[in-house]
Amino acid sequence: MSSRPGRRPGTSGTRQAILDAARASFNQNGYDRATIRDVAKRASVDPALVHHFFGSKQNLFAASMDLPFEPTPIIERVIQGDIDSLGDRMAQTFFAVWDAHAEGNPIVGLIRSATSNEKAGSMLREFITTEIVGRITKGLRLSSPQLRAGLIASQMIGAAFIRYVIRLEPIASMSAADLGRLIAPTLQRYLTADVK
Amino acid sequence: MSSRPGRRPGTSGTRQAILDAARASFNQNGYDRATIRDVAKRASVDPALVHHFFGSKQNLFAASMDLPFEPTPIIERVIQGDIDSLGDRMAQTFFAVWDAHAEGNPIVGLIRSATSNEKAGSMLREFITTEIVGRITKGLRLSSPQLRAGLIASQMIGAAFIRYVIRLEPIASMSAADLGRLIAPTLQRYLTADVK
Repeated sequence: MSSRPGRRPGTSGTRQAILDAARASFNQNGYDRATIRDVAKRASVDPALVHHFFGSKQNLFAASMDLPFEPTPIIERVIQGDIDSLGDRMAQTFFAVWDAHAEGNPIVGLIRSATSNEKAGSMLREFITTEIVGRITKGLRLSSPQLRAGLIASQMIGAAFIRYVIRLEPIASMSAADLGRLIAPTLQRYLTADVK
Repeated sequence: MSSRPGRRPGTSGTRQAILDAARASFNQNGYDRATIRDVAKRASVDPALVHHFFGSKQNLFAASMDLPFEPTPIIERVIQGDIDSLGDRMAQTFFAVWDAHAEGNPIVGLIRSATSNEKAGSMLREFITTEIVGRITKGLRLSSPQLRAGLIASQMIGAAFIRYVIRLEPIASMSAADLGRLIAPTLQRYLTADVK
Protein backbone atom coordinates (compact mmCIF):
# COMPACT_ATOMS: atom_id res chain seq x y z
CA MET A 1 0.00 0.00 0.00
CA SER A 2 2.76 2.45 0.93
CA SER A 3 4.91 1.45 -2.04
CA ARG A 4 5.24 5.08 -3.13
CA PRO A 5 5.95 6.98 0.02
CA GLY A 6 6.57 10.32 -1.69
CA ARG A 7 3.34 10.26 -3.65
CA ARG A 8 0.57 12.79 -2.97
CA PRO A 9 -2.35 11.17 -1.20
CA GLY A 10 -5.11 10.00 -3.53
CA THR A 11 -8.79 9.70 -2.71
CA SER A 12 -8.34 7.18 0.07
CA GLY A 13 -5.48 9.19 1.57
CA THR A 14 -7.62 12.31 1.63
CA ARG A 15 -10.56 10.43 3.13
CA GLN A 16 -8.26 9.04 5.81
CA ALA A 17 -6.80 12.49 6.53
CA ILE A 18 -10.35 13.84 6.99
CA LEU A 19 -11.20 10.96 9.34
CA ASP A 20 -8.07 11.58 11.42
CA ALA A 21 -8.92 15.29 11.58
CA ALA A 22 -12.51 14.44 12.53
CA ARG A 23 -11.40 12.19 15.39
CA ALA A 24 -9.14 14.95 16.69
CA SER A 25 -11.85 17.59 16.35
CA PHE A 26 -14.60 15.49 18.00
CA ASN A 27 -12.17 14.56 20.74
CA GLN A 28 -11.17 18.13 21.46
CA ASN A 29 -14.52 19.86 20.90
CA GLY A 30 -17.07 17.16 21.63
CA TYR A 31 -19.79 16.26 19.15
CA ASP A 32 -21.89 19.40 19.40
CA ARG A 33 -19.12 21.97 19.07
CA ALA A 34 -17.16 20.17 16.35
CA THR A 35 -17.79 21.61 12.89
CA ILE A 36 -17.20 20.44 9.33
CA ARG A 37 -15.28 23.69 8.83
CA ASP A 38 -12.87 22.89 11.69
CA VAL A 39 -12.37 19.33 10.45
CA ALA A 40 -11.61 20.63 6.94
CA LYS A 41 -9.13 23.14 8.30
CA ARG A 42 -7.31 20.45 10.31
CA ALA A 43 -7.13 18.21 7.22
CA SER A 44 -6.12 21.16 4.99
CA VAL A 45 -8.97 20.53 2.58
CA ASP A 46 -12.01 22.47 1.44
CA PRO A 47 -15.17 21.96 3.57
CA ALA A 48 -16.99 21.01 0.35
CA LEU A 49 -14.72 17.98 0.11
CA VAL A 50 -15.72 16.84 3.60
CA HIS A 51 -19.36 17.15 2.55
CA HIS A 52 -18.58 15.27 -0.65
CA PHE A 53 -17.07 12.34 1.25
CA PHE A 54 -19.38 12.16 4.25
CA GLY A 55 -22.49 14.22 3.51
CA SER A 56 -23.20 15.27 7.09
CA LYS A 57 -21.63 15.72 10.49
CA GLN A 58 -23.44 12.67 11.83
CA ASN A 59 -22.14 10.46 9.04
CA LEU A 60 -18.65 11.84 9.59
CA PHE A 61 -18.97 11.06 13.29
CA ALA A 62 -20.16 7.53 12.56
CA ALA A 63 -17.24 6.96 10.19
CA SER A 64 -14.78 8.37 12.72
CA MET A 65 -16.21 5.88 15.27
CA ASP A 66 -15.61 3.11 12.70
CA LEU A 67 -19.30 2.47 12.13
CA PRO A 68 -19.52 0.65 8.79
CA PHE A 69 -22.76 2.35 7.70
CA GLU A 70 -24.23 5.83 7.47
CA PRO A 71 -26.86 6.50 10.09
CA THR A 72 -28.54 9.49 8.43
CA PRO A 73 -30.38 7.76 5.54
CA ILE A 74 -31.32 4.85 7.79
CA ILE A 75 -32.80 7.11 10.47
CA GLU A 76 -34.63 9.18 7.81
CA ARG A 77 -36.19 6.04 6.37
CA VAL A 78 -37.24 4.60 9.72
CA ILE A 79 -39.05 7.72 10.90
CA GLN A 80 -41.23 7.83 7.75
CA GLY A 81 -44.66 6.32 8.30
CA ASP A 82 -47.19 5.60 10.99
CA ILE A 83 -46.09 6.43 14.53
CA ASP A 84 -48.00 3.44 15.90
CA SER A 85 -45.62 1.10 14.12
CA LEU A 86 -42.48 3.20 14.63
CA GLY A 87 -41.25 0.96 17.49
CA ASP A 88 -41.48 -2.03 15.18
CA ARG A 89 -39.60 -0.30 12.34
CA MET A 90 -36.90 0.87 14.75
CA ALA A 91 -36.39 -2.59 16.25
CA GLN A 92 -36.41 -4.41 12.90
CA THR A 93 -34.03 -1.96 11.27
CA PHE A 94 -31.65 -1.79 14.22
CA PHE A 95 -30.94 -5.52 14.34
CA ALA A 96 -30.98 -5.95 10.54
CA VAL A 97 -28.36 -3.20 10.11
CA TRP A 98 -26.08 -4.45 12.91
CA ASP A 99 -26.42 -8.06 11.73
CA ALA A 100 -25.33 -7.02 8.24
CA HIS A 101 -22.15 -5.53 9.69
CA ALA A 102 -21.53 -7.97 12.52
CA GLU A 103 -18.18 -9.32 11.25
CA GLY A 104 -16.10 -6.43 12.56
CA ASN A 105 -18.31 -6.13 15.62
CA PRO A 106 -18.20 -2.31 15.59
CA ILE A 107 -20.75 -2.06 18.39
CA VAL A 108 -18.30 -3.83 20.69
CA GLY A 109 -15.77 -1.10 19.95
CA LEU A 110 -18.36 1.59 20.47
CA ILE A 111 -19.42 0.26 23.88
CA ARG A 112 -15.80 -0.35 24.83
CA SER A 113 -14.69 3.22 24.02
CA ALA A 114 -17.66 4.67 25.87
CA THR A 115 -16.79 2.66 28.98
CA SER A 116 -13.03 3.13 28.93
CA ASN A 117 -12.87 6.78 27.94
CA GLU A 118 -14.82 9.65 29.47
CA LYS A 119 -14.64 11.73 26.27
CA ALA A 120 -15.94 8.94 24.06
CA GLY A 121 -18.81 8.51 26.50
CA SER A 122 -19.70 12.18 26.37
CA MET A 123 -19.44 12.22 22.56
CA LEU A 124 -21.84 9.30 22.33
CA ARG A 125 -24.15 11.13 24.72
CA GLU A 126 -24.10 14.30 22.61
CA PHE A 127 -24.58 12.31 19.41
CA ILE A 128 -27.64 10.53 20.82
CA THR A 129 -29.06 13.77 22.20
CA THR A 130 -28.51 15.92 19.16
CA GLU A 131 -29.04 13.56 16.27
CA ILE A 132 -31.23 10.74 17.45
CA VAL A 133 -33.46 12.77 19.76
CA GLY A 134 -33.63 15.64 17.30
CA ARG A 135 -34.57 13.44 14.38
CA ILE A 136 -37.00 11.13 16.11
CA THR A 137 -38.92 13.94 17.72
CA LYS A 138 -38.84 16.34 14.75
CA GLY A 139 -42.42 16.53 13.53
CA LEU A 140 -43.66 13.92 16.00
CA ARG A 141 -44.17 16.50 18.77
CA LEU A 142 -43.65 13.96 21.53
CA SER A 143 -43.54 15.12 25.12
CA SER A 144 -40.29 14.51 27.05
CA PRO A 145 -38.23 13.74 23.93
CA GLN A 146 -34.94 13.48 25.87
CA LEU A 147 -36.35 10.95 28.30
CA ARG A 148 -37.97 8.88 25.54
CA ALA A 149 -34.76 8.83 23.52
CA GLY A 150 -32.76 7.70 26.54
CA LEU A 151 -35.19 4.88 27.30
CA ILE A 152 -35.13 3.77 23.66
CA ALA A 153 -31.34 3.91 23.58
CA SER A 154 -31.18 1.89 26.82
CA GLN A 155 -33.15 -1.01 25.33
CA MET A 156 -31.34 -0.92 21.97
CA ILE A 157 -27.83 -0.74 23.43
CA GLY A 158 -28.65 -3.39 26.04
CA ALA A 159 -30.05 -5.77 23.44
CA ALA A 160 -26.98 -5.20 21.27
CA PHE A 161 -24.78 -5.97 24.30
CA ILE A 162 -26.57 -9.29 24.94
CA ARG A 163 -26.69 -10.30 21.23
CA TYR A 164 -23.31 -9.10 19.95
CA VAL A 165 -21.01 -8.64 22.96
CA ILE A 166 -21.66 -11.43 25.44
CA ARG A 167 -23.70 -13.47 22.93
CA LEU A 168 -26.19 -14.90 25.35
CA GLU A 169 -28.44 -17.58 23.81
CA PRO A 170 -31.10 -17.76 22.46
CA ILE A 171 -30.89 -14.01 21.74
CA ALA A 172 -27.49 -14.32 20.06
CA SER A 173 -28.69 -16.75 17.39
CA MET A 174 -32.33 -15.88 16.81
CA SER A 175 -33.25 -14.01 13.66
CA ALA A 176 -33.19 -10.22 13.63
CA ALA A 177 -36.90 -10.32 12.78
CA ASP A 178 -37.78 -12.49 15.79
CA LEU A 179 -35.73 -10.39 18.18
CA GLY A 180 -37.18 -7.22 16.65
CA ARG A 181 -40.69 -8.51 17.34
CA LEU A 182 -39.84 -9.09 21.01
CA ILE A 183 -38.23 -5.67 21.51
CA ALA A 184 -40.65 -3.60 19.40
CA PRO A 185 -43.43 -3.21 22.01
CA THR A 186 -40.84 -1.88 24.48
CA LEU A 187 -39.65 0.78 22.02
CA GLN A 188 -43.24 1.63 21.11
CA ARG A 189 -44.13 2.12 24.78
CA TYR A 190 -41.13 4.41 25.26
CA LEU A 191 -42.17 6.39 22.16
CA THR A 192 -45.83 6.95 22.81
CA ALA A 193 -46.90 5.87 26.29
CA ASP A 194 -47.29 8.30 29.15
CA VAL A 195 -43.85 8.80 30.70
CA LYS A 196 -43.58 10.45 34.11
CA MET B 1 1.02 -2.06 54.60
CA SER B 2 3.96 -4.30 53.72
CA SER B 3 6.02 -3.16 56.70
CA ARG B 4 6.43 -6.76 57.86
CA PRO B 5 7.12 -8.69 54.70
CA GLY B 6 7.84 -11.97 56.44
CA ARG B 7 4.60 -11.98 58.43
CA ARG B 8 1.92 -14.61 57.80
CA PRO B 9 -1.08 -13.10 56.05
CA GLY B 10 -3.96 -12.14 58.36
CA THR B 11 -7.66 -12.13 57.56
CA SER B 12 -7.45 -9.55 54.80
CA GLY B 13 -4.41 -11.25 53.29
CA THR B 14 -6.24 -14.57 53.22
CA ARG B 15 -9.35 -12.99 51.74
CA GLN B 16 -7.21 -11.38 49.05
CA ALA B 17 -5.44 -14.68 48.31
CA ILE B 18 -8.82 -16.36 47.86
CA LEU B 19 -9.97 -13.58 45.52
CA ASP B 20 -6.81 -13.88 43.43
CA ALA B 21 -7.27 -17.64 43.26
CA ALA B 22 -10.94 -17.16 42.32
CA ARG B 23 -10.05 -14.81 39.47
CA ALA B 24 -7.53 -17.32 38.15
CA SER B 25 -9.97 -20.21 38.49
CA PHE B 26 -12.91 -18.38 36.84
CA ASN B 27 -10.60 -17.20 34.12
CA GLN B 28 -9.26 -20.64 33.38
CA ASN B 29 -12.41 -22.71 33.91
CA GLY B 30 -15.23 -20.28 33.20
CA TYR B 31 -18.01 -19.65 35.69
CA ASP B 32 -19.81 -22.98 35.42
CA ARG B 33 -16.79 -25.26 35.74
CA ALA B 34 -15.01 -23.29 38.46
CA THR B 35 -15.48 -24.80 41.93
CA ILE B 36 -15.01 -23.59 45.48
CA ARG B 37 -12.78 -26.63 45.97
CA ASP B 38 -10.46 -25.59 43.12
CA VAL B 39 -10.32 -22.01 44.38
CA ALA B 40 -9.43 -23.24 47.88
CA LYS B 41 -6.71 -25.49 46.51
CA ARG B 42 -5.17 -22.62 44.53
CA ALA B 43 -5.21 -20.40 47.61
CA SER B 44 -3.91 -23.22 49.83
CA VAL B 45 -6.81 -22.89 52.26
CA ASP B 46 -9.63 -25.13 53.37
CA PRO B 47 -12.83 -24.93 51.25
CA ALA B 48 -14.73 -24.14 54.46
CA LEU B 49 -12.77 -20.91 54.72
CA VAL B 50 -13.88 -19.87 51.23
CA HIS B 51 -17.49 -20.55 52.29
CA HIS B 52 -16.88 -18.61 55.48
CA PHE B 53 -15.66 -15.53 53.60
CA PHE B 54 -18.00 -15.56 50.61
CA GLY B 55 -20.87 -17.93 51.33
CA SER B 56 -21.49 -19.04 47.76
CA LYS B 57 -19.89 -19.33 44.35
CA GLN B 58 -22.01 -16.46 43.01
CA ASN B 59 -20.93 -14.14 45.83
CA LEU B 60 -17.31 -15.18 45.27
CA PHE B 61 -17.70 -14.42 41.57
CA ALA B 62 -19.25 -11.01 42.31
CA ALA B 63 -16.39 -10.17 44.68
CA SER B 64 -13.80 -11.31 42.15
CA MET B 65 -15.46 -8.98 39.59
CA ASP B 66 -15.15 -6.15 42.18
CA LEU B 67 -18.90 -5.90 42.74
CA PRO B 68 -19.31 -4.11 46.06
CA PHE B 69 -22.36 -6.12 47.16
CA GLU B 70 -23.47 -9.74 47.41
CA PRO B 71 -26.02 -10.64 44.78
CA THR B 72 -27.40 -13.80 46.43
CA PRO B 73 -29.42 -12.26 49.30
CA ILE B 74 -30.63 -9.45 47.03
CA ILE B 75 -31.89 -11.85 44.37
CA GLU B 76 -33.50 -14.08 47.01
CA ARG B 77 -35.37 -11.11 48.44
CA VAL B 78 -36.56 -9.79 45.07
CA ILE B 79 -38.05 -13.07 43.91
CA GLN B 80 -40.20 -13.38 47.04
CA GLY B 81 -43.76 -12.23 46.49
CA ASP B 82 -46.35 -11.76 43.79
CA ILE B 83 -45.17 -12.48 40.26
CA ASP B 84 -47.37 -9.69 38.87
CA SER B 85 -45.22 -7.12 40.66
CA LEU B 86 -41.89 -8.91 40.17
CA GLY B 87 -40.89 -6.56 37.32
CA ASP B 88 -41.40 -3.62 39.61
CA ARG B 89 -39.37 -5.16 42.47
CA MET B 90 -36.57 -6.05 40.06
CA ALA B 91 -36.39 -2.56 38.55
CA GLN B 92 -36.61 -0.75 41.90
CA THR B 93 -33.98 -2.95 43.55
CA PHE B 94 -31.60 -2.88 40.60
CA PHE B 95 -31.26 0.89 40.49
CA ALA B 96 -31.35 1.30 44.27
CA VAL B 97 -28.47 -1.17 44.71
CA TRP B 98 -26.33 0.31 41.93
CA ASP B 99 -27.02 3.85 43.10
CA ALA B 100 -25.85 2.93 46.59
CA HIS B 101 -22.53 1.78 45.13
CA ALA B 102 -22.16 4.26 42.31
CA GLU B 103 -18.95 5.95 43.58
CA GLY B 104 -16.58 3.28 42.30
CA ASN B 105 -18.73 2.74 39.23
CA PRO B 106 -18.26 -1.05 39.27
CA ILE B 107 -20.77 -1.54 36.46
CA VAL B 108 -18.51 0.46 34.17
CA GLY B 109 -15.72 -2.00 34.91
CA LEU B 110 -18.03 -4.94 34.39
CA ILE B 111 -19.22 -3.72 30.98
CA ARG B 112 -15.67 -2.76 30.04
CA SER B 113 -14.22 -6.19 30.84
CA ALA B 114 -17.02 -7.92 28.97
CA THR B 115 -16.36 -5.83 25.86
CA SER B 116 -12.58 -5.92 25.93
CA ASN B 117 -12.05 -9.52 26.92
CA GLU B 118 -13.70 -12.57 25.38
CA LYS B 119 -13.34 -14.62 28.57
CA ALA B 120 -14.91 -11.98 30.79
CA GLY B 121 -17.81 -11.82 28.34
CA SER B 122 -18.33 -15.56 28.48
CA MET B 123 -18.07 -15.57 32.29
CA LEU B 124 -20.75 -12.91 32.51
CA ARG B 125 -22.86 -14.96 30.12
CA GLU B 126 -22.49 -18.10 32.24
CA PHE B 127 -23.19 -16.17 35.43
CA ILE B 128 -26.41 -14.69 34.01
CA THR B 129 -27.50 -18.05 32.61
CA THR B 130 -26.73 -20.16 35.65
CA GLU B 131 -27.50 -17.85 38.56
CA ILE B 132 -29.97 -15.27 37.36
CA VAL B 133 -31.98 -17.52 35.04
CA GLY B 134 -31.90 -20.39 37.48
CA ARG B 135 -33.01 -18.29 40.42
CA ILE B 136 -35.67 -16.23 38.70
CA THR B 137 -37.31 -19.22 37.07
CA LYS B 138 -37.01 -21.60 40.02
CA GLY B 139 -40.52 -22.15 41.25
CA LEU B 140 -42.04 -19.67 38.79
CA ARG B 141 -42.29 -22.29 36.02
CA LEU B 142 -42.00 -19.72 33.27
CA SER B 143 -41.79 -20.87 29.68
CA SER B 144 -38.60 -19.97 27.75
CA PRO B 145 -36.61 -18.99 30.88
CA GLN B 146 -33.38 -18.40 28.94
CA LEU B 147 -35.03 -16.04 26.51
CA ARG B 148 -36.85 -14.14 29.27
CA ALA B 149 -33.66 -13.78 31.30
CA GLY B 150 -31.78 -12.47 28.26
CA LEU B 151 -34.47 -9.89 27.53
CA ILE B 152 -34.52 -8.78 31.17
CA ALA B 153 -30.73 -8.54 31.25
CA SER B 154 -30.76 -6.53 28.00
CA GLN B 155 -33.02 -3.84 29.50
CA MET B 156 -31.20 -3.75 32.84
CA ILE B 157 -27.69 -3.58 31.40
CA GLY B 158 -28.77 -1.02 28.79
CA ALA B 159 -30.40 1.21 31.39
CA ALA B 160 -27.28 0.95 33.56
CA PHE B 161 -25.16 1.93 30.55
CA ILE B 162 -27.27 5.04 29.90
CA ARG B 163 -27.49 6.05 33.59
CA TYR B 164 -24.00 5.20 34.89
CA VAL B 165 -21.67 4.96 31.89
CA ILE B 166 -22.59 7.68 29.40
CA ARG B 167 -24.82 9.52 31.92
CA LEU B 168 -27.45 10.69 29.49
CA GLU B 169 -29.95 13.12 31.02
CA PRO B 170 -32.62 13.03 32.34
CA ILE B 171 -32.04 9.32 33.07
CA ALA B 172 -28.68 9.97 34.77
CA SER B 173 -30.13 12.29 37.43
CA MET B 174 -33.67 11.07 38.01
CA SER B 175 -34.41 9.10 41.17
CA ALA B 176 -33.97 5.35 41.19
CA ALA B 177 -37.67 5.07 42.02
CA ASP B 178 -38.76 7.16 39.01
CA LEU B 179 -36.50 5.26 36.64
CA GLY B 180 -37.64 1.97 38.14
CA ARG B 181 -41.26 2.90 37.46
CA LEU B 182 -40.48 3.56 33.78
CA ILE B 183 -38.53 0.33 33.29
CA ALA B 184 -40.73 -1.98 35.41
CA PRO B 185 -43.46 -2.63 32.79
CA THR B 186 -40.76 -3.72 30.32
CA LEU B 187 -39.31 -6.24 32.78
CA GLN B 188 -42.81 -7.43 33.67
CA ARG B 189 -43.64 -8.01 30.01
CA TYR B 190 -40.42 -9.99 29.55
CA LEU B 191 -41.27 -12.05 32.64
CA THR B 192 -44.87 -12.97 31.97
CA ALA B 193 -46.02 -11.99 28.48
CA ASP B 194 -46.18 -14.47 25.64
CA VAL B 195 -42.73 -14.73 24.10
CA LYS B 196 -42.39 -16.81 20.95
